[in-house]
Formats: sequence, C-alpha cells, structure tokens
Amino acid sequence: MTEKTPSTKDYAQSLCAKAREAATVLATVSTAGKNKALIGAAEAIRKSAAVLKEENSKDIAAGKSAGLSAAMLDRLELTDKRIEAMATGLSEVAALADPVGEIIKGWRRPNGLLIEKVRVPIGVILMIYESRPNVTADAAALTLKSGNAVILRGGKEAYHSNMAIAGILGKAVEAAGLPGGAVQVVATTDREFVSTLLKMTGHIDLVIPRGGKGLIKRVVEDSRIPVIKHYEGICHTFVDNGADLAMAADICLNAKVQRPGVCNAMETLLVHEAVAGEFVPDIVRRMRAAGVEVRGCAKTRELAPDAAEATEEDWSTEYLDLILSIKIVKDVSEAVKHIRKHGSAHSDAIVSNDHTSVEYFVNEVDSSAVFVNASTRFNDGGEFGFGAEIGISTDKLHARGPMALEELTSYKYVVYGNGQVRR
Amino acid sequence: MTEKTPSTKDYAQSLCAKAREAATVLATVSTAGKNKALIGAAEAIRKSAAVLKEENSKDIAAGKSAGLSAAMLDRLELTDKRIEAMATGLSEVAALADPVGEIIKGWRRPNGLLIEKVRVPIGVILMIYESRPNVTADAAALTLKSGNAVILRGGKEAYHSNMAIAGILGKAVEAAGLPGGAVQVVATTDREFVSTLLKMTGHIDLVIPRGGKGLIKRVVEDSRIPVIKHYEGICHTFVDNGADLAMAADICLNAKVQRPGVCNAMETLLVHEAVAGEFVPDIVRRMRAAGVEVRGCAKTRELAPDAAEATEEDWSTEYLDLILSIKIVKDVSEAVKHIRKHGSAHSDAIVSNDHTSVEYFVNEVDSSAVFVNASTRFNDGGEFGFGAEIGISTDKLHARGPMALEELTSYKYVVYGNGQVRR
Repeated sequence: MTEKTPSTKDYAQSLCAKAREAATVLATVSTAGKNKALIGAAEAIRKSAAVLKEENSKDIAAGKSAGLSAAMLDRLELTDKRIEAMATGLSEVAALADPVGEIIKGWRRPNGLLIEKVRVPIGVILMIYESRPNVTADAAALTLKSGNAVILRGGKEAYHSNMAIAGILGKAVEAAGLPGGAVQVVATTDREFVSTLLKMTGHIDLVIPRGGKGLIKRVVEDSRIPVIKHYEGICHTFVDNGADLAMAADICLNAKVQRPGVCNAMETLLVHEAVAGEFVPDIVRRMRAAGVEVRGCAKTRELAPDAAEATEEDWSTEYLDLILSIKIVKDVSEAVKHIRKHGSAHSDAIVSNDHTSVEYFVNEVDSSAVFVNASTRFNDGGEFGFGAEIGISTDKLHARGPMALEELTSYKYVVYGNGQVRR
Repeated sequence: MTEKTPSTKDYAQSLCAKAREAATVLATVSTAGKNKALIGAAEAIRKSAAVLKEENSKDIAAGKSAGLSAAMLDRLELTDKRIEAMATGLSEVAALADPVGEIIKGWRRPNGLLIEKVRVPIGVILMIYESRPNVTADAAALTLKSGNAVILRGGKEAYHSNMAIAGILGKAVEAAGLPGGAVQVVATTDREFVSTLLKMTGHIDLVIPRGGKGLIKRVVEDSRIPVIKHYEGICHTFVDNGADLAMAADICLNAKVQRPGVCNAMETLLVHEAVAGEFVPDIVRRMRAAGVEVRGCAKTRELAPDAAEATEEDWSTEYLDLILSIKIVKDVSEAVKHIRKHGSAHSDAIVSNDHTSVEYFVNEVDSSAVFVNASTRFNDGGEFGFGAEIGISTDKLHARGPMALEELTSYKYVVYGNGQVRR
C-alpha cells in the first residue's frame, strides 16, 4: 500500500483531518456505540485468524531474510493463541467503565456558581511503537474506549500484520456506525513520514512512543507535539536491616526472573550491610539456580566470590535480561542515594519491617511506583486494577506510571450560573 | 549582573543543578517551612518598597527611552499599591492548603496490596513571561508552595525590577532554612540563553510560557521539555432563543468590558436569529455607551446600521480591547459550529433557558471552561476557589483551564504489601 500514498504532507494532512473529524464525533458518542465497535472488532479478529496469519507470514518471511533475531521474530509472530488474546483484549476493554463524562469533582461557589470538572477525551493521539502487532489492537481499543481518535504507526517489520489488523478494526468501527477515522494505521513505512507527523501541532494532541531508547529519543527530539514517554526501567529492590529475609528472597526472585524482559523487572539489588552476610550468599545461589548472571560490588564479591565485578556502568543499565547487579549499602539513606543517582524513577521497592526505614524510603524515593514488601513487577495497569494499560509512563506530567483509560483523557470545566457577572 | 554570567552553557547548567538540588529538598520539606519562607518574603517585600521602586525606576527610564507604549510602561511600573499587592499575594499563598502529600486515591487489591496515589511536586519548573514584574513574586509563591524549584525568566524590560524581587525572595527562602536554588531569576537578558535552557531535558521538568503569541510560539518551537501553554482566548457568548435577555445583556457587557485586555474576555457575541431583532439593537447601544467598537455580520448591520463590517479575520481575532464582533446564527448548532471553527477552546458561554440547547452546548463545546448563564470572565483560579493561579492553560494535557497549586503537582503510587509476588 506504500505506493498508493500521495505526497508525504498531503497524506499526513489527510490522516489528521480524518482523525480530527472522528475525534469530534467520538467525544460525545454513547458508551454503547463504542462497545459495539469493540465487540464487533473482537469477533472479526477471531473470524479473520487465517487471513491474519497469512499476512503475518509475509512479515515473518521478510524478517527472516532481513536477519531478525529469534527474539524479534518471536515477538512478531501471530499465533492462534495470540490472535485469541487480541480478541479477548478487545472484549475486555468493552467491559471496562467508560471514563468519558465522569464528573471528577463538583462544587458550588459562594456566588452560587456550580462548577463541574468533567472528564473528556484528549482528541487525536499518535501512537508509535515497535515490533509486536498485538499493540495495534490493544492501543486502538483503549484510545477508542476513551473517546480519542488514534493514528497508529507500528514497526516496519510488522507492516503487513498491522495493516491487516487495522483493516479489520476499521470495518468493525464503521459497522458500529462510528467514523472510520477513529482508528487509522499509517500506510507507509517511510521513517521521514513520522517526522512530518510529529510537526502537526494543532492536528495531533498527544504522541505516545513505546519502544527502545532510540525510538523514544528520536520522537522527543523531533516532536513539537506533547509526548508522554514510556521509557526505561532501572528498578531496584532494597533489602533493609530487619527485613523478613525469606520474604525478601521471594520478592527479589520474582522481581528479577518472573519476566526479565520488561520495564518493571528489577535490575539492581541493594542489601543493608547488617543482613548481607546472611542474605547475599543465599540470594546469589537462588538467582544462579534460576539462570541469572550475578554482578556485584566488592563487598558482594567477598560474600559470593564467583560473582562478576559490577562496573559503574552496570548501576545505570537496564539489562532487560537475566542479569542482576548487587550492591551492599550502609543503610536506607545510602540505598536512596544510589537509587536517585542511578535509577530511572520507574519502580523501586523496599523490603523492611522497620517503620522508620519504610517511611523514609517511601518519602524520599520519587519513582512512578514505590513498593513496600512487594515485587516491582506489580507496576502494571492490570495489577493496579485499571483493567488494561497502554504502557507505563516514565514522565511526571499528565500521566505517571500505568497509563490506562483515565490517563487517556483530559477534562473541561462546566459552570452553571443564573446570571452571575464578575465584579 | 549580565557581565558576571559565565558561558551560556555553564550558567544554564549551574542554574539547573541548583534548582534540582533545591527541588529534592523541597519535595519533602514541611508545610510550615514553606509558609515561613512565604510570610518572610511578604514582609521583606513590604520593607523593601523603596529599593524596589528605585530599581523599577531604572526599568521605567530605559523603557521610556526605548519608546515603550504607555500601556507597556503601566504594566511595568511598581507602585506602592502593587508592591503591597505582591506582599499580600505571598501571604495568601502561605494560607492555602499544601497540595503535596495528599492521598488523591487509595484502594486495596484482591491480593491484599494497598495502593495509594500520592500527590508530589513536579520538580524543576521554568517560567517564561513578559513585562509585569509582579509575576516574579506570584509564580515563585505558587511553585514554592507546591514544592517545586523554579527558574524565572521575565522580560528584559523588567530586568532590574525582577532581579530586585528575586534577591528579596532568595534571602527570605534561605532565612527560612530552605535552599536558595528554590527560586532563581535568570540573570541575563540574552534571548539565546532561553533556547539553551529549553534544551535542558532531564534538568528542567516543565516549561510554562505566559505572554503574547510570539513568545509562546517560539517556546513551543524551541523546547524539548514539556510545555504547558497559556495561549490566546477567542471567547464567545451565545444568546439563545428564549434566553432571559436582560440577564444576557448583563452577562455580555460584563464579559466584554469589565476587563477587556485579558484572555477570558468575550471577543465574539453570537445571537439566535429569533431574538436578534429585540436583543441586538439594545446590546449594541449599551456596548457603545461603554466605549465598545462593534463589528457585525450582514444581518447584525441590518439591525444596527452604524456597526462596522466584521470580516472573516474578525471571527478569529483576540482583540484584547474594547472591540466586539457580533454574528447572528440560525440556532445553537450553528453557534457551536462557529465556536469550533473560530474559537480557541478557552472560555465560551451560552445564555439560555432551554434545557436541550444548554445540554447540547455543554456537550459539544470543548473549551477549558463552558459557562451556562454566566460571564466568561469567571474562568479564573481565584473565581474557581483555587486561591491563586499561575495562569489559564489552553492545553489539554496535565492542566487545562485555571492552573493553580494542584496543577503544579504530579503524583506517585505507593504500594504496601506483605510479601506479594506476581504470578
């Protein structure tokens, strides 16, 4: 479909115009209408499994000849199970409460004015992501349910899969009587085209990039539109003096190995020196047994001599892999200092039974989620009870941490009077 | 002080480093500590009236020789009354509730995790504004109370006044035991320096420009840091069929003339054709009596023959002056279409007793504040009961409409468990 694309700027303007038109309709459409589209889309995805797998096989073949890694090819692949998961995801979003129209707050002023703060959609959202084609369906579902029009730009390696998914979603949206511009996938893999879109201020209201460091840096540099980043997670667990060490070991193992390739997995373990002698040899053994490569500070290596040396670079690295760096610290204050210096303000945990330490850690660590006696892996929209998420924001403006339906909305004030004028 | 400035980049880095250091302290400082600084600053401003007026006279003299308009010189001038108002403003912010630490929401998950959504400061804020020196004190008060460090960059025409105010605030902040980096004024009027600051991603968390179109466009174009704009207000009042016309006239007059130079003043009046014959001649007469120049559509000019012709450009112009454009429309639907096409989504009002029209207008007009039977002039932090405001955001992300203490904060999640791990 790339060849059908007119000039870059015309195509960008046409995408944006359709999206804006759709957004205006979506802002006031009924919940039932949006749900009908989502449930229709789920059914259509299920019925189109064969077509989806066929289109996906083109991407897989192209990926193989381009020499993509096995991990990349795995992320790219649409299996029956993944197609069913996409469909289920769409139905699940239909079942969530509609955030639009909620009166977030309401109060009356002394002069009689009644002020309501009402949740409204943001408008037109540009979502830029990488390989996994299921993101196309997930992102479309969340943006549609929150009343926004979305322009989706997936990775070029998933081009055929994304276009096929988009075609199915587009038909379902129109069959439910909603404007087709509600969900659009960019029909070109031209990189420059993203730059053009990122300059469309006034036409696109928000850009959400999700992917590797390179992608996100490029988007932030290029964009003149507000960006909410889903950036890296250099997450820590601090095991304090007086922690329940059995609990600490379970939490640390979970945070490291349950799913090491995600942003809320632990990268660095900090251990209070008073419990290091007991805790470190044990946790190193268990991490190793789980296939984790351990790198430690000098004190750690005294207690676990076969651990590799952790360099200065290790403390600031998001491994996204079965690698763990361990540092022994004097106390909670040194732990907090380390986290401030090396962390990415994503997810950090303390395991402790000491109330003063817990309070200090919770107040002083400014991360999107701070955990006490629990695994960092819980920093997730589903686990927080939000039903679904578009990602974990590492920004502090508008949305921080799990970004779900509410975070895809804005608000307006509606003020009711009976003739008030300002003095 | 310009000559003291080291190289641009070094100076920017030093400002940012001091601000970050201060922000880390401010994030957890007690409310009492912040209030002590604010009250101390108010007293110091009062005591320093003579010095302030002396420094201000340098700006006024420079402004006169630079040929600034009388209006500009008026905005620039620090009178005893304005100095007292600055001091009062500082004390009033001290009296407001501290937003930091508020538990916005809290809930328990089925697995026992207790999740708290806690309000925290944003961090380091860069505020860029134009002539009025009192903004220096107002912005410093709000950012300090909300636990943020601020870097203030006022207009070069107010340089001496701003530096004098900053010096007083800085001393008061330090006398209260808070870090001096909490409030810094940029000690150079070099325009390029702003560009340097706007590239300091990671060091500055938010940029708030407040001023004319030119300033705001430049900041949005230059900045790689998130920006919350305080942009123009092309505000409408729609007088519907069946409105209480006496009430409508009072509301319209208030919206236009009570303070025409501000963003929430009405620029265009839309009148339902069914009441135009009765309403338009009357309101035109009253507007004229209040010194307002009236420009109208063809139908308006039939009813008020001496009104000038409103051109297409008029409908999209923020006059900020005693000028009003009037258009007669078929119904509420045409009024909404006009507002969508020409408005700036700032403040728009309907005067009506028809429930269907009101509901339609409120749902379809997506402005930061939509008023029913009240003046657009109420779109204001003080009038909303927020105590004070740093401005009116015309953006939809993070803060929309009046931006006060809450809008100067972010949040983090604090999650309490007793050993939970993710399955």
